[in-house]
Amino acid sequence: MAALQLFILCVVLNMVLSSSQQIITTLPGFDGDLPFKLETGYIGVGQNDDVQLFYYFIESERSPEDDPLVLWLSGGPGCSGFSGLVFEIGPLSFDYEKSKVNLPKFLLNPYSWTKVANIIFLDAPVGTGFSYANTWQGYIMNDTLSAAQNYYFLRKWLIAHPSFLANPLYIGGDSYSGIIVPMIVQHISDGIDVGHRPRMNLKGYLLGNPLTDSTENQNSVPHFAYLNALISHEIYESAKRNCQGEYVNVDPSNGLCIADLENITECISRVNHAQIYEPSCRGPFISPRRKLFNWNRSIIEEDSLDFLSSPTQPAASGTWCRFHNYVYSYIWANDKTVQRAIGVQEGTVKYWVRCNQSLSYTKDVSSSLAYHRNLIKKGYQVLIYSGDVDMKVPYVATEAWIKSLNLTIETGWQPWFVEGQVAGYWYRYKEKNNYHLTFATVKGAGHTAPEYKPKECLGMIDRWFACHPL
Amino acid sequence: MAALQLFILCVVLNMVLSSSQQIITTLPGFDGDLPFKLETGYIGVGQNDDVQLFYYFIESERSPEDDPLVLWLSGGPGCSGFSGLVFEIGPLSFDYEKSKVNLPKFLLNPYSWTKVANIIFLDAPVGTGFSYANTWQGYIMNDTLSAAQNYYFLRKWLIAHPSFLANPLYIGGDSYSGIIVPMIVQHISDGIDVGHRPRMNLKGYLLGNPLTDSTENQNSVPHFAYLNALISHEIYESAKRNCQGEYVNVDPSNGLCIADLENITECISRVNHAQIYEPSCRGPFISPRRKLFNWNRSIIEEDSLDFLSSPTQPAASGTWCRFHNYVYSYIWANDKTVQRAIGVQEGTVKYWVRCNQSLSYTKDVSSSLAYHRNLIKKGYQVLIYSGDVDMKVPYVATEAWIKSLNLTIETGWQPWFVEGQVAGYWYRYKEKNNYHLTFATVKGAGHTAPEYKPKECLGMIDRWFACHPL
Repeated sequence: MAALQLFILCVVLNMVLSSSQQIITTLPGFDGDLPFKLETGYIGVGQNDDVQLFYYFIESERSPEDDPLVLWLSGGPGCSGFSGLVFEIGPLSFDYEKSKVNLPKFLLNPYSWTKVANIIFLDAPVGTGFSYANTWQGYIMNDTLSAAQNYYFLRKWLIAHPSFLANPLYIGGDSYSGIIVPMIVQHISDGIDVGHRPRMNLKGYLLGNPLTDSTENQNSVPHFAYLNALISHEIYESAKRNCQGEYVNVDPSNGLCIADLENITECISRVNHAQIYEPSCRGPFISPRRKLFNWNRSIIEEDSLDFLSSPTQPAASGTWCRFHNYVYSYIWANDKTVQRAIGVQEGTVKYWVRCNQSLSYTKDVSSSLAYHRNLIKKGYQVLIYSGDVDMKVPYVATEAWIKSLNLTIETGWQPWFVEGQVAGYWYRYKEKNNYHLTFATVKGAGHTAPEYKPKECLGMIDRWFACHPL
Repeated sequence: MAALQLFILCVVLNMVLSSSQQIITTLPGFDGDLPFKLETGYIGVGQNDDVQLFYYFIESERSPEDDPLVLWLSGGPGCSGFSGLVFEIGPLSFDYEKSKVNLPKFLLNPYSWTKVANIIFLDAPVGTGFSYANTWQGYIMNDTLSAAQNYYFLRKWLIAHPSFLANPLYIGGDSYSGIIVPMIVQHISDGIDVGHRPRMNLKGYLLGNPLTDSTENQNSVPHFAYLNALISHEIYESAKRNCQGEYVNVDPSNGLCIADLENITECISRVNHAQIYEPSCRGPFISPRRKLFNWNRSIIEEDSLDFLSSPTQPAASGTWCRFHNYVYSYIWANDKTVQRAIGVQEGTVKYWVRCNQSLSYTKDVSSSLAYHRNLIKKGYQVLIYSGDVDMKVPYVATEAWIKSLNLTIETGWQPWFVEGQVAGYWYRYKEKNNYHLTFATVKGAGHTAPEYKPKECLGMIDRWFACHPL
């Protein structure tokens, strides 16, 4: 028993010693002291801590000791936690009016989820944002390993921040995190069962426009396109008939199906898949890389890099494109002064990109449905929300896998409101073990929802954390 | 023969003598001379010309002698032509930043359809805008009489403007004009057949988000709501089953259907029916008059009147509402200086409203489908377009009646583009007699489309007038 305790102590000590952290009170681009508490740091994971995961931690601006603690992942894989922080749910956003190409300026986001929660924005997997490996082997990654490393990260982070051990813990993320988050939750849940230290106060998980099953997701695109008047009922019915609902793994000799899919592709390929009513800023004539079925929001990233060499404001170049907004993140995060200010170790990351597509990453888990099914048994609180005009991970795909779980309906489809406006629709399932799954659409939001409807999403998350009806 | 000629001459003289017109070069609220040619006037119709229809005529800014001549009606019934002129397809719009509550200012609309067409904006039926009757009997109106009066108006207008007799003539309008416009076209067509003077160079007609069959339109609302994630698939299927697709004339003893409709009403009643992604500015708590199935865009008008007594900018009062934009039209059009400037006869109209709901009007034609069916035989060009997120006259209702005509498809469903962006989708039917019917959706546009997507709609109409593919 003494030997076991000594072993645990050693593990814990090793966990703490291999991490670094610092409190940041000012940031280049933000005038004056930050009005919230920001910490950044690295935590070593993997063999001999050869993988160093970088994070941004922001304390709740309400009641840090009582509010939930959320570990947040931005998807991709390869999208930096900083992207979640400045473009989605964090307290900062770029001030596009006052920013200059070489001098990005920040604004405060009045709808930050840090108004109601403590949030760790994690650069994961390795190769994402400022996270790096000391060995080339460390960069070889897959879903399984990434989830395990994220779990290990969280254990070490909590050991280093014991004051947050008692807070309700949630794991969250969007897009590709739909694969990783349930796996992390499973690790935590298993860890609780076998008595891993530190003991985590896991309450549940939340996912926005989450990829859950890549094939099913891709197969839902024609249905979504039909629902939203992007293809005709005739084309949709013909494709359903000729392709038997399978639009990904198509028999090359099935000419009728292929003709239908070409028809569908012609109709939707130049629509902005992330938000079908916003401009699309690349057509097939710009890049042959655009795919019919693609949930990866980073595909448009490279275009924005062109702006870095432009002497004018990103948005001044014709059609407004949402990805112009991302340009300042490249400038800011690659500034040496900035990197020093947030404690980035020099020489570790050559060039910061918002979503790194050059990871050495194997997607070894094509569906996370089995994890959801397992976790139902545990009594967690689950929130799944979908911007309803996102064609990358269409809400119909999400609805379909939720229905396939055959849960017991507690509350049927109904509107939820923010400031008297219908912000979307929701329903809730309940199982005997107190497991609750809430599904919510966010009306008019894209991939992912808080970037498009920040006010509405803060309203949603605040109520959900408080266990109120949406 | 001489007697007949004399009779025609008398008719024509009477037609000309009973009209008044004036050229307007400056307008209160617009700095400097108008950069387009505006004429306003009255034309007498009805018994002894007791009905005086007011119009705004704007010459094409391109080539008035070659460009089409369009008679435009704004629907309602009761919506002023001025509304079409400043909020939809005309060259002026209010400058919301520079306007003050007592001093509306105009901007030029770069996407005015008068860039490519001569347009008569008509205040019809009587009681609409500045149109009035000299007798109380003159105010008693219905669809049949209104269409006949509009036809008579156009004949007189063309006699007074013979230089436009050779221009390609189109009749157009939106919303409730879906009932009236085909009837006017039928009158013109019949008139051509029987040799009415002046002989009109009728080429076709165009309708935006047009009401065509009121019952079918109302029955399409649940389908549209389902397609757009406002109600669940389950509720929709249940309602279809229980109500047998009939949601208007419901058997009061059909409890299951009534329960489903209550469910649907709860889901959609607080959504903005004119554009489902824009804020709704009245809920059931504001007004019990909101109906589940209502295509009348004037229902929100009265609210905006409240702003007239407000000392601040209309838009400064919390949630942005599109109908705040309409407030300046009330201030401007009720200003005596303005009325003198545009030649309004003093004492004829007590108070100008954008959409007059207090007409003494009987809707005696519940469907204009038979008119469309008749007109197919005549070889006209027809454009029907639908903002695809309008729930007042949902595009699915419009598609359904077009399909019911069983025409021959010439071009299948495909995207159309403006500035490289998918602006909507279109297809075209062709009949042997050279009749073409084009149906186009306008992506992301509400009721009615040019108000929401002006640039796209100008692109659409310019190509359509030129007989190009969309």
